[in-house]
Amino acid sequence: MSSIVQIRLVQMEVLPGRPRENTAKILSAVESAKKDGVGLLVFPEMAIPGYLLGDEWERGAFLRECEACGEKVKDASIGLTVMFGNVGLDWQRKNEDGRVRKYNALFVAESGRFVGPEGGPYPFVIKTLMPNYREFDDSRHFYDTRKLSAELGRNLADLIAPVPTASGRIGAVLCEDSWDMDYAVSPLQVLGGKGVDFVVNASCSPFTFNKNNKRNRVFAAAARRLQRPLVYVNNVGIQNNGKTVFTFDGASCIYDGQGNPVETLAPFAEGVMDFALPVGGTGAVAVPSVVREDDTAVLYEAIRYGTEKFMKACGVERVVVGASGGIDSAVVAAIYSRILPPDRLLLVNMPSRFNSPTTINLARELAKNLGCGYIEIPIEDSVKLTRAQVDGVEARWPDGVKRLALTDFLLENVQARDRSSRVLAAVAASFGGVFTCNANKSEMTVGYTTLYGDLGGWLANLADLWKGEVYAIGRHLNDKVLGRAVIPEGSFAIVPSAELSSAQAVDEGKGDPLIYPYHDCLFRAWVEDWNRVTPEEILEWYLEDTLESHIGYPGKVKELFPTPRQFIADLERWWNHYQGLGIAKRIQAPPVLAVKRRAYGFDHRESQMGPRYTSRYEDLKRRVL
Amino acid sequence: MSSIVQIRLVQMEVLPGRPRENTAKILSAVESAKKDGVGLLVFPEMAIPGYLLGDEWERGAFLRECEACGEKVKDASIGLTVMFGNVGLDWQRKNEDGRVRKYNALFVAESGRFVGPEGGPYPFVIKTLMPNYREFDDSRHFYDTRKLSAELGRNLADLIAPVPTASGRIGAVLCEDSWDMDYAVSPLQVLGGKGVDFVVNASCSPFTFNKNNKRNRVFAAAARRLQRPLVYVNNVGIQNNGKTVFTFDGASCIYDGQGNPVETLAPFAEGVMDFALPVGGTGAVAVPSVVREDDTAVLYEAIRYGTEKFMKACGVERVVVGASGGIDSAVVAAIYSRILPPDRLLLVNMPSRFNSPTTINLARELAKNLGCGYIEIPIEDSVKLTRAQVDGVEARWPDGVKRLALTDFLLENVQARDRSSRVLAAVAASFGGVFTCNANKSEMTVGYTTLYGDLGGWLANLADLWKGEVYAIGRHLNDKVLGRAVIPEGSFAIVPSAELSSAQAVDEGKGDPLIYPYHDCLFRAWVEDWNRVTPEEILEWYLEDTLESHIGYPGKVKELFPTPRQFIADLERWWNHYQGLGIAKRIQAPPVLAVKRRAYGFDHRESQMGPRYTSRYEDLKRRVL
Repeated sequence: MSSIVQIRLVQMEVLPGRPRENTAKILSAVESAKKDGVGLLVFPEMAIPGYLLGDEWERGAFLRECEACGEKVKDASIGLTVMFGNVGLDWQRKNEDGRVRKYNALFVAESGRFVGPEGGPYPFVIKTLMPNYREFDDSRHFYDTRKLSAELGRNLADLIAPVPTASGRIGAVLCEDSWDMDYAVSPLQVLGGKGVDFVVNASCSPFTFNKNNKRNRVFAAAARRLQRPLVYVNNVGIQNNGKTVFTFDGASCIYDGQGNPVETLAPFAEGVMDFALPVGGTGAVAVPSVVREDDTAVLYEAIRYGTEKFMKACGVERVVVGASGGIDSAVVAAIYSRILPPDRLLLVNMPSRFNSPTTINLARELAKNLGCGYIEIPIEDSVKLTRAQVDGVEARWPDGVKRLALTDFLLENVQARDRSSRVLAAVAASFGGVFTCNANKSEMTVGYTTLYGDLGGWLANLADLWKGEVYAIGRHLNDKVLGRAVIPEGSFAIVPSAELSSAQAVDEGKGDPLIYPYHDCLFRAWVEDWNRVTPEEILEWYLEDTLESHIGYPGKVKELFPTPRQFIADLERWWNHYQGLGIAKRIQAPPVLAVKRRAYGFDHRESQMGPRYTSRYEDLKRRVL
Repeated sequence: MSSIVQIRLVQMEVLPGRPRENTAKILSAVESAKKDGVGLLVFPEMAIPGYLLGDEWERGAFLRECEACGEKVKDASIGLTVMFGNVGLDWQRKNEDGRVRKYNALFVAESGRFVGPEGGPYPFVIKTLMPNYREFDDSRHFYDTRKLSAELGRNLADLIAPVPTASGRIGAVLCEDSWDMDYAVSPLQVLGGKGVDFVVNASCSPFTFNKNNKRNRVFAAAARRLQRPLVYVNNVGIQNNGKTVFTFDGASCIYDGQGNPVETLAPFAEGVMDFALPVGGTGAVAVPSVVREDDTAVLYEAIRYGTEKFMKACGVERVVVGASGGIDSAVVAAIYSRILPPDRLLLVNMPSRFNSPTTINLARELAKNLGCGYIEIPIEDSVKLTRAQVDGVEARWPDGVKRLALTDFLLENVQARDRSSRVLAAVAASFGGVFTCNANKSEMTVGYTTLYGDLGGWLANLADLWKGEVYAIGRHLNDKVLGRAVIPEGSFAIVPSAELSSAQAVDEGKGDPLIYPYHDCLFRAWVEDWNRVTPEEILEWYLEDTLESHIGYPGKVKELFPTPRQFIADLERWWNHYQGLGIAKRIQAPPVLAVKRRAYGFDHRESQMGPRYTSRYEDLKRRVL
């Protein structure tokens, strides 16, 4: 009973919101496939419209264009079966927001016609499971089969069925449909019960660190359960939801009917995979050994790729980096040096009297190593002018005058704003480009940044990395990517410091108030852990003496904070920043390039409510003190 | 069969994310109600946790605290029936994101126990209809009865049932459950079929201009259909989703069984309404005449209330306003003058050589009229310094130097950034307060603002108002609120201008490139209309000669743009700004105070995709030209 289908997976770059461009690419791939005798050609989910489009889905003109594009692909499907994702429209029905009915749909076209699931109401496959977590808003835009079954008074299982095609009975699903662990219904199980030759999962699945490992476990188990091969097609490129920018790594893959991944496309690159798919059997083949990539290499590649693609999407061709001599700006500059020719990259060092020759020299050395442009623009005169114009100046009220006072502490922020909003913005404009935001996730978490200062910039491409991960990326750049010490050793060696006051003198070993090796772990538990914890859990673990293992800190917390009072003061200090001004600052921060779980912005949604503590925390605190 | 229930509605201010504070208030109201012989005491939806909390719902410690608070209210419910909104938890089950099962629930407590719907699986009422549009993310956080019915294999109608209480059989629902026009199921219809004595709708419904009119139509029709009284309880206060801040006006109301609104609580104020509710009949009573408020008065009150509450939430006690002499900053200053004593309000005028004495004098006059602080800090020296440090300065590359050029156009933005990021930020810090963002929605739409310049600030409280609406609020302030010309007549009379170049000289009648009366209407059609249109529809209407009536522009478009070429150039110019840099700027804009449909940020979600046009638009354009 077993036969062979010549299948081709197209891991294409999907341009969000550009149906015509995407369709042109699809049509060209269809023509090539015809010439090559392909039987089944598979494109990703939402290959025509793109997926993360904000509220673009509300625009009728856009939807009509997507529909017309889908018709063109249908018309071209002569002599082969073509599967592609698009928005499925029913102009006679409404979504729950009162606008036109939209489905996240997988279209199957052959012989110039659409073929829908057996017994289904539409000539397309509807996504059943709607992700509404992290960056996803599916239920905001799309109606699903579960709602449809209620509306039509039909069993949900009636609406999930194989698509009968010339290439076999296909179990066709979309992305989340195969991630069914936490849902009351499993589309794959329903399809398995009805008999399918193989499964196709078309996805538009953003890259997240470690997600592919989980996907391999979940999808392999599904193939094994069904005893059928599973074809996974994902797109590449970049899409964003305003505050958060997501890369797509593709990594399209075929699993055989025993769940072995038999072939995978290279990540972060367009590609095509041809495969002779055994149909009607389990399709067991030899298992290639899976090479586990270095974690830092994966993160680096996602950041480099995302930065490059986002530059292209935004039309950015020249970049200015405020180079302090520290590790963050050095890593940012080195990443851009892998994307831009050196004549389009300009480093600016902006010393004040608090900047040590050590760091200025490190910035110079970095620029020299990169071969890019370099300039020094001191901010001392401007800071003096601001001080003169504000400090001690009299504001007039009807009943008298009041004198303003600009303290040394406030002058720290004056310096940071002067650098970004005055100097870097003007230099970037003169240079015909943008300036970067070099903030990392540790700083962003507790708002250890100045609004309109170092928190300014066109994109924060390190802002999903803890400080320790920034160092690791720096090492990786020198050791593996650039092959030499482009980032000066001194930038790794000096104490991290903002150099905004004499209390932050790097040559005296003074710097940031953060103990990064510990605080990175603490903040990760607050922000990235699956069950995001609060001071209540932290204090509980501290009392149980299990804090280090819970948050993965390799040292001893009691060595950092000899007394409970010190421990709690530190905990509350940073929690207050994270939940207080930190949020206010993140609201006005640049877009964050997401590479892990819970990037700030749209993946980690926040409300300004001020820092709060539970009763139980306060009980525990009383117990500790 | 008819009897009377002494019902009390509590229109309380709910503090988001502060269950203990909210519960203390609820418990105090329960004690008062007991003394007053109240039979049924009703609080709003999510009265314990608050509602717009971002991803706070993922934190176990927070959820446990909410649950414990609910228990306290239950224990207090001796001798009366208490209804209140809270998160309903099932620690044994999972949400679809894999986290603990959460319901948006309405709890009914009496005799120290919770009473659930007849035959239901939980001792609380579950919200059935989940809004996932505008600012709402219900399905991100909460499981609904529709999913539950699939999971349990029970009919949905089994899960929607009256709650049998000592006060009668109550049709208890939450907010969206009564806005059922676009859903396949109507909870009220199901309840009506099972027989209820009256309906209680507990809501946490953000204020949106004109929403109460629609609510009156929808809720009145529901009461009429069921022939039962309907009690609507909504909270007051302010809640936010980071980028967007929402006010809650309360406006709690009782409708009789004929759908007449019989009593309404004053908006934007905490309040209690006692009512002898006829149970078992239609409860017809005399209809009071409804007073229709002035639109501008409603908008003003929402903005003043929201600004005041958000200040309190963020701990803001002193405010600095950059006062240009124009209408936007004047209106902002006048609004703050209604919230703050004059010694906490400081106006700063920051002239450059492009600022006319006319506008400087208007700023002085405004400060004098308000009795607040005033100071002038010129930016000329700083702009000169920046020019000297950047223009013509040499950046060094390995193969030579390049000279930067700061053009006059780029110097416009230098001025704007100098004012906000250098001067206002330093003055606000010295003054111990914040500075305001005075941008309106017209400017925000097309990015006619400078990032880190006039787009900076702690809150953009006019950013949901078109320019024309800002003028109207200004008039309302002078005529109705302040009773005298506090905002100088000149600020209404001068041409709107940024005064950043000699091309924007107000005394020569030169100013902004926007034709506000027309562009306000055009932008409204793009942003706020229910079917948000694009250049395709605009051009279609232009061709049909129906553009003015479609967008509500009282003038003649052909008088503004004598030729189609001019019309199209203007259309594309602003569309490109709206969909291009406008989005980039909004991503880094301050929180917007929402008062209408589709405030920027979380209510109008956007992706940076660049401006795009459909094929059909391009066809039409070819036809026109």
